[in-house]
Amino acid sequence: MFSSPDWLGYLAAALTTIAFLPQVIKTWRTKSADDLSLVWLTLFSSGVFCWMMFGVVLRSTPIILANGVTLVLAVVLGILKLRFRR
Amino acid sequence: MFSSPDWLGYLAAALTTIAFLPQVIKTWRTKSADDLSLVWLTLFSSGVFCWMMFGVVLRSTPIILANGVTLVLAVVLGILKLRFRR
Repeated sequence: MFSSPDWLGYLAAALTTIAFLPQVIKTWRTKSADDLSLVWLTLFSSGVFCWMMFGVVLRSTPIILANGVTLVLAVVLGILKLRFRR
Repeated sequence: MFSSPDWLGYLAAALTTIAFLPQVIKTWRTKSADDLSLVWLTLFSSGVFCWMMFGVVLRSTPIILANGVTLVLAVVLGILKLRFRR
C-alpha cells in the first residue's frame, strides 16, 4: 500500500498525544472535571505508562517520547480532576 | 531486560483500550458531558483511526483490533457528548 508506513505512525502518535492538550486547557479554564471518569484516567495512565516501558525495553525513542508526553498530560488531568472535585 | 516485551505491549494495549469503557458508562449514566473537550475527542479519534490504518498497512491484527475497539468507544463518547450538549 505504502513503501513506508512510518509517516502514518508518526501522524497517529502526534494526534493521540497532542489531543490531550485541549482537554487539559478546558479543564484548567472551567475548573470543572465532574464528567471525567477517574477510573478512565487511572486505567489510561497505567496503560500509557506500560507503553512507555515497552518503548524503554525496545529502546525506541519515539515510543518513549510520545507516551511520556501523553502520560504527563493524563497525570495533570488526574490532578486537576481531584483538585476540582466537588 | 526481558526476553520478550510482547506481554508488556499487550498489557498496555488492553489498559488503554478498556480504559474508555468506564468513561462511556459514566457519560451514559450521568447524561452529562460538558467537561469533555470536543477538540480532544476529535483529535484523539482521528489519531486512533490513523493507528488502525497503520495496523492495516502493517497487516498487524493486534494493532487493528486494539485501535478498532478504542475508536468505537471514542466515537460513541463523541456521539454522547453531542447528544447531551446543553
